[in-house]
Amino acid sequence: MTTRLYSFAAGEQGDWTVTAQAAVIGEPLPAVRALSVLPGPVPTVDHRWVLRGITSNERYVERAEREVLVAKQQGLGRAPSTCAVLIPIRKSVAWWALTQDERRAVFETRSKHIEIGVRYLPAIARRLHHCRDLTPDEPFDFLTWFEFAPADAQAFDVLLAELRASEEWHYVDREVEIRLTRG
Amino acid sequence: MTTRLYSFAAGEQGDWTVTAQAAVIGEPLPAVRALSVLPGPVPTVDHRWVLRGITSNERYVERAEREVLVAKQQGLGRAPSTCAVLIPIRKSVAWWALTQDERRAVFETRSKHIEIGVRYLPAIARRLHHCRDLTPDEPFDFLTWFEFAPADAQAFDVLLAELRASEEWHYVDREVEIRLTRG
Repeated sequence: MTTRLYSFAAGEQGDWTVTAQAAVIGEPLPAVRALSVLPGPVPTVDHRWVLRGITSNERYVERAEREVLVAKQQGLGRAPSTCAVLIPIRKSVAWWALTQDERRAVFETRSKHIEIGVRYLPAIARRLHHCRDLTPDEPFDFLTWFEFAPADAQAFDVLLAELRASEEWHYVDREVEIRLTRG
Repeated sequence: MTTRLYSFAAGEQGDWTVTAQAAVIGEPLPAVRALSVLPGPVPTVDHRWVLRGITSNERYVERAEREVLVAKQQGLGRAPSTCAVLIPIRKSVAWWALTQDERRAVFETRSKHIEIGVRYLPAIARRLHHCRDLTPDEPFDFLTWFEFAPADAQAFDVLLAELRASEEWHYVDREVEIRLTRG
């Protein structure tokens, strides 16, 4: 059985080398040189910091959108995908107080979150990890891991700029961006 | 800061006395005499078993439904509410593979889960705890804790029968029912 829980373990050494790290909104994370994405939990004591997230059922994707996503997307770990970006975000109390229909309206009807992501498939692969319900005290709500080839790095920047310009991002109250290369 | 995580710690002693315990669907839980509902995590070793769940944002409730719920509901811990029922359930792989619109259609459009619950407010108070994303290996997906006065016990039985007769319950693959009285 494959786990749904992943640990992003950061420090001096790891499978991915950090090329840039910045706090976009709110508190930064301690600077690190490298990071590994490991299945399951890992002891925090062995690393500078560890973020944990769990893959889960989709919260907003509808059937027609799922069909498009599944038809276009490819997995992580493709050989040419030597670039990765980890984006931990936390959403505000105001976001979590919205009802399901209100969150869906912000997320897709007005912010086009799914539609934007689909436009960059299969080039930019991603995996979403949920943290909010692991414990009541997680530092972030979501960890998104992106992988792409160096030739798609500019396209990734556009994708990121589009999401950050959306109404949904008004509800992001902490965001860190960590860029990496494999090896 | 109040926690969102609760532990249902069961064994020989506790704040609530078990009056009946049964496996409704699938594997039973070991029989116990009493149970306490404790904020935060507790060591499993001190109890016969411990189930943990976390309160979270609503996954299906829409704005108009929220208004009705908030207007009618009352909290846990009311003095006349000396009866409680804990219902741990797990939903099937088929449920979790549905998209958001499909789950909403089963949950409310066809099963009237919210509408049924509203009908029994404020008499039957409840709190929903999510377990599925605490770890990848939780024995249940949800723990629902109900409280009501002895005079409302028959109404509770009807509420439960209505939910179990719904299409949504076709997706329940494990369910345990534990009835309790305070003290």
